Amino acid sequence: MIDYDAFLSRAGAGMKESAIRRMGAVVARNLDVISFAPGYPSAETFPYQDFQEIARELLSGSDEHVLQYGPTRGFRPLVDLVAGIMDHRGAPTATERLLITTGSQQGLDLVARVLLDPGDVVLVELPTYTGAITAFRNVQAHMAGVRQEADGIDLGALDAVHARLVSAGRRVRLLYLVPNFQNPTGLLIGLDKRLALLEWAARHDILILEDDPYRELYFEDAATEADVRPMKADDREGRVVYLSSFSKTLAAGYRVAWIDAPAPLAAKFEFAKQAADLCTGTLDQRLVYEVARRGILDRQLPLLRTHYREKRDVMVTALRRELADVVSWADPRGGFFLWARLPERLDADRLLDRAVHHGVVYVAGEAFFVDDADDGLPGPSTDGGGRNLLRLSFSAPTHSRIREGVVRLAAAIREELAELSSSASAVQQAR
Amino acid sequence: MIDYDAFLSRAGAGMKESAIRRMGAVVARNLDVISFAPGYPSAETFPYQDFQEIARELLSGSDEHVLQYGPTRGFRPLVDLVAGIMDHRGAPTATERLLITTGSQQGLDLVARVLLDPGDVVLVELPTYTGAITAFRNVQAHMAGVRQEADGIDLGALDAVHARLVSAGRRVRLLYLVPNFQNPTGLLIGLDKRLALLEWAARHDILILEDDPYRELYFEDAATEADVRPMKADDREGRVVYLSSFSKTLAAGYRVAWIDAPAPLAAKFEFAKQAADLCTGTLDQRLVYEVARRGILDRQLPLLRTHYREKRDVMVTALRRELADVVSWADPRGGFFLWARLPERLDADRLLDRAVHHGVVYVAGEAFFVDDADDGLPGPSTDGGGRNLLRLSFSAPTHSRIREGVVRLAAAIREELAELSSSASAVQQAR
Repeated sequence: MIDYDAFLSRAGAGMKESAIRRMGAVVARNLDVISFAPGYPSAETFPYQDFQEIARELLSGSDEHVLQYGPTRGFRPLVDLVAGIMDHRGAPTATERLLITTGSQQGLDLVARVLLDPGDVVLVELPTYTGAITAFRNVQAHMAGVRQEADGIDLGALDAVHARLVSAGRRVRLLYLVPNFQNPTGLLIGLDKRLALLEWAARHDILILEDDPYRELYFEDAATEADVRPMKADDREGRVVYLSSFSKTLAAGYRVAWIDAPAPLAAKFEFAKQAADLCTGTLDQRLVYEVARRGILDRQLPLLRTHYREKRDVMVTALRRELADVVSWADPRGGFFLWARLPERLDADRLLDRAVHHGVVYVAGEAFFVDDADDGLPGPSTDGGGRNLLRLSFSAPTHSRIREGVVRLAAAIREELAELSSSASAVQQAR
Repeated sequence: MIDYDAFLSRAGAGMKESAIRRMGAVVARNLDVISFAPGYPSAETFPYQDFQEIARELLSGSDEHVLQYGPTRGFRPLVDLVAGIMDHRGAPTATERLLITTGSQQGLDLVARVLLDPGDVVLVELPTYTGAITAFRNVQAHMAGVRQEADGIDLGALDAVHARLVSAGRRVRLLYLVPNFQNPTGLLIGLDKRLALLEWAARHDILILEDDPYRELYFEDAATEADVRPMKADDREGRVVYLSSFSKTLAAGYRVAWIDAPAPLAAKFEFAKQAADLCTGTLDQRLVYEVARRGILDRQLPLLRTHYREKRDVMVTALRRELADVVSWADPRGGFFLWARLPERLDADRLLDRAVHHGVVYVAGEAFFVDDADDGLPGPSTDGGGRNLLRLSFSAPTHSRIREGVVRLAAAIREELAELSSSASAVQQAR
């Protein structure tokens, strides 16, 4: 027998399955389970008829480049179109700063590989996006978490964590932020705070990685387009590497996203991508380009804002009805996620088996917390934890499935609470 | 000004542009240039009408998973179909050993990341595929080249290079091979040698990475299906990681390929892929699956063999007519490439400017040689070089463009030779 473990690189040895992807597998096996787990866009919203018509035209055979290898930077007309989108977002750019990626996950991976050596530190929000955690962990970087407050990452805590790292001799390279409707908390970083973060990064000579997949999905009863202004728009210095995507606004299956970065870094990301997959799917890029060029994306955006706002309403209403006395949360102002807090004595990860038994899944909060025990640093913990927290995605299920899912979740939680009480009283009686 | 170089990881600092990709950019800028550079499949062969019909059905909206995120392992029916293909190739496998990748380039990248630490050594054929060189270099692995003979890699040289590395204390992890119609030489490893290589790897406890994109494209006048039997088919131990792809047989733009690896490694490749791009494009996977399921792939294969064989004939005939006195080569028995040797005094890289001026491009041989100067090892060189070699891809251009391209190449070569002679005689006269 070959001992495969002996063949693993240090990075390979540390690679683990993503908690969210694992949940996806649970759902795939059991169709009756209602999934609040992965942040899937709603397939009901996909403009299939337009996709069908465009695919028919593209696959006519009249353009031999449609199914051929393409440039690593991306299909040039799509790159130009993305430049227009950046302009519209208040962050004018240039072709040499842009790179089409195979989803924003690839963007995270390329940034991690080009900028991080093993042991380098990335500052992340606590909690933070699991896909970013995985990308950073796979290059053996360390993550240091910084707690958030109502308007996003806590500047005082950021200072304290950074000072602690520097005094321990660690090299802090990157501050990773999801300013708009953060995954998993749904929080929005305040506009003043965005400017303060740019100044802070300049003061400490740290690059900012701004991950912005949800910005188009602001809910008009609680946020405006002004609230989602990218930090990149005020990046006078070239300190921000910006990621965004068509996965949440057109369809996730195309795997088309982009990086906007200072030109010297964009060139390195391109070289890294040459080795990673040569180019993003060329038919996918063409489809996305045509959909956007024909105005279908612009037509979709207001519909999507309404679609997801209504789903948020359905989930919030159901939670108020079923669980107001035991679960707390802040109403999401955009995006896909509601971040819920259970009573302290509950453990969201342990509750999961019972939830699956009742036919509902979510992602337990722990998946979004970086594990401080690993960082080997002196000083106080940077808020690990998340045991009684959970992420509920309201984006994909229908209204009735959302309602039914919350009923099932409530049943699981009440059952768990009852069992905890009875075993607690059993302990008391035994004394 | 921010000093971006100061922010690069060691891996990032070493990343360079691929020579082949750079050639692609030259061609994209100038349509009249005839390209023998990238190994593009011939777009004339793509079954557009079938693609169009299948895309229409898939995009009808009746299946909500078509444009959604999918499992990292791949679309399950496609995974099963790939298992059938492996069976047909004489290498029965199992679902837990398979992973769909975003092109075989991603396969190379995942293998490099999971198996190689900085400084680890990969044994490669000399010359070898540039995409593999890039993937290995991006994880800071070292490559040691082993020269080839007419039936592939030289076993004596392999022993010698390995012994030299081991005595220098280097960790040799992997032997990378393209046994069928190797890129760039077009060579086929003999069947006995394949078995000997498996034994050799077992004796030294090294894993084999078998990259097999061209195996379906054997030319029936010079090779049979028996000649392309994968090493994986005789891998009793689980020592071979096997890569193959639909890029050369259906269309490159879909970016759909696969890894077949021992299950514990396949699991690690999956976790690495979760961080790299979550999943391969789902519409692309469906399209490829349906094309294969409906028998269109099987119908294509004999047509492709004929198509590329005819193109080889056109190129070989043109080379014999135009350049028989100055260029030598072995007639390709399959695949996309003809590996040509210029007179010793010519430098293929320096010739390139003149070739572009004449309206033709190729890839200079140097790109396929690993640079020994970097490996810091004692002992004799492992055959760096390749200055007078070049790779000519006959796969994509039409017959008339192949003929015209060879005429242009001949003009460039003769001009260069004339200039070298006249400057040599000028030197003589000056003496």
